[in-house]
Amino acid sequence: MTVRTHTALDREQEQALALLLGAQRFVLVGHMKPDGDVIGSQAAMCRVLQALKKDVWIVNPDPPEGRYEYLAREVRFGTYTTGDLPPHDVAVLLDFSERSRTGDMEAALVRAPSKKVVVDHHIHHGEVWWDARFVDVKAAATGLLVARIAKALGVPLDATAARGVFTSLVTDTGWFKYSNTDAETLRVAGELIESGVVPSELYAAIYQSKSHQHPAYVGRLLSGLAYFADNRLAVIQQTLRDATDPNLVDSDEVLDILRSVKVVEVVLFMRELEKGGVKVSARSKSDFDVNALMRQFGGGGHKKASGATVEGQLADVRERVVAAALARFAKEPEGSPDRR
Amino acid sequence: MTVRTHTALDREQEQALALLLGAQRFVLVGHMKPDGDVIGSQAAMCRVLQALKKDVWIVNPDPPEGRYEYLAREVRFGTYTTGDLPPHDVAVLLDFSERSRTGDMEAALVRAPSKKVVVDHHIHHGEVWWDARFVDVKAAATGLLVARIAKALGVPLDATAARGVFTSLVTDTGWFKYSNTDAETLRVAGELIESGVVPSELYAAIYQSKSHQHPAYVGRLLSGLAYFADNRLAVIQQTLRDATDPNLVDSDEVLDILRSVKVVEVVLFMRELEKGGVKVSARSKSDFDVNALMRQFGGGGHKKASGATVEGQLADVRERVVAAALARFAKEPEGSPDRR
Repeated sequence: MTVRTHTALDREQEQALALLLGAQRFVLVGHMKPDGDVIGSQAAMCRVLQALKKDVWIVNPDPPEGRYEYLAREVRFGTYTTGDLPPHDVAVLLDFSERSRTGDMEAALVRAPSKKVVVDHHIHHGEVWWDARFVDVKAAATGLLVARIAKALGVPLDATAARGVFTSLVTDTGWFKYSNTDAETLRVAGELIESGVVPSELYAAIYQSKSHQHPAYVGRLLSGLAYFADNRLAVIQQTLRDATDPNLVDSDEVLDILRSVKVVEVVLFMRELEKGGVKVSARSKSDFDVNALMRQFGGGGHKKASGATVEGQLADVRERVVAAALARFAKEPEGSPDRR
Repeated sequence: MTVRTHTALDREQEQALALLLGAQRFVLVGHMKPDGDVIGSQAAMCRVLQALKKDVWIVNPDPPEGRYEYLAREVRFGTYTTGDLPPHDVAVLLDFSERSRTGDMEAALVRAPSKKVVVDHHIHHGEVWWDARFVDVKAAATGLLVARIAKALGVPLDATAARGVFTSLVTDTGWFKYSNTDAETLRVAGELIESGVVPSELYAAIYQSKSHQHPAYVGRLLSGLAYFADNRLAVIQQTLRDATDPNLVDSDEVLDILRSVKVVEVVLFMRELEKGGVKVSARSKSDFDVNALMRQFGGGGHKKASGATVEGQLADVRERVVAAALARFAKEPEGSPDRR
């Protein structure tokens, strides 16, 4: 057994690093509804740049969720409201590359006379509008790229930066469960523990901060479960009456219970929205492509995890989406065991 | 960030290795109802010894659970029925040290004229009856000790051995969630991926092999949830009527949902038994010592995870155990956030 170190940097990545090293004032930007990978990468990147005596602001279209409070206590996350971004030489875009994903702050970001650097692990679609990028679409999380940048720059991760990278890793790999969990992910996670991360504390913060009403809510959702296609398709729904405080709901937990059924390949979770329409979340643990299914309804995402917001009444939307899924089951062979 | 290698071997461990190297015929023994750490360590130890041209039998008081079929396909797990163990020079006891835990095979094990070697990470209570031991009570899993033994003997882990050690690690750390998850655990897990482990496949095998009736069962249990002590104590129960095939039930999943509630410190799960009496499982995520509580009822385990089988009707047992727990809550200060 040998531990392979990550690939040497490519020329594009070297250029991105040179741009970072040469600048003084930074704005770190995330996408709307920033997830754990955005928040974690920003916290780590902020500390790494500060260690190099740079001035750093973090500005996102939305504030971090409460469960990342342990990072927000140590690093200041700004939320964009209006006007210009703070004066800066370089804007670093973490975990995304499409400018529209910055929502209301898109115009301010684009008009800022700064260089734009993308640090990301997603495949880019559309216009190339940045000046440099540090991208590896095989990396499990953007936080892993920040760890590589820190190593390349010779900056050791302090405890806060380590918690940031660890947050990225665990939220993007489903706490090391998904198929993107590779050797580098676990090896780096081990190093982060030596830098001060206590996994059980982060687990408690991220996944064990729910309301005491949460278990009963999960129970209600499960009691309404319906199967189709010889139990290969599992469908649950949440009416407006079932809805609890959205901050207290972790739909992944419910979806995990359904995915734990051996024969289940696809899970659909339908949520009635207050503004009308239905939010559909689709998850696959076989070759069934839920992204293709969700694109039929104007949504999108990944092959194994996708979603759509569909106009109409819950019962109607449900019937249409289930019918479309069944049509795909009829065309596709039995799924192979594989996930996310 | 530097990766620390594990502590050098102590003299006791060196002696155990010498005993292993000097012998030819081995029996690998686990405890009753062998868990993932037993099964995984045995698979790995078997492959390591076989690589050294040793003859190896695995014999346990009970067969492995179906979810470890991916190991049972590659390594032969024998189940003790009656009579003598196969002729052997050394019996290796994996993941336990108390002879009574071998149940019906205890007499055969004790009368076998072999040397006994304990490989374990538990604190031993009672008589010293073995000839050598390779023990580290700080190790997250016994499988980690087998990995250390392999390294010390210069035997690389093949894909099967790697799956065995990985199985040990994930089942004893709650898939890297519990507080015993340390840097060595994650670093070794990373190395195991490079030896051929695919984490998402093992996750599917271990945790996603449930019956399609499982989600509704979980829903029923959750609908009967009761809280006590300002929601710090959560209690659920399973009557004989609720019971489904015990092989399809993973009580940890239900307990996890209850532990995900921020203010919950202690979870009690009461199961009515067919033979009469009630099996109580107790979990703590604070300083509340559930082992002390379970000892009041003749059971035992760890501070954070313990259990007892109590005589009586479900309603009576429940009332007595809850009352005892409330008395302890009244004595103890607010728990600190911590979890096994």
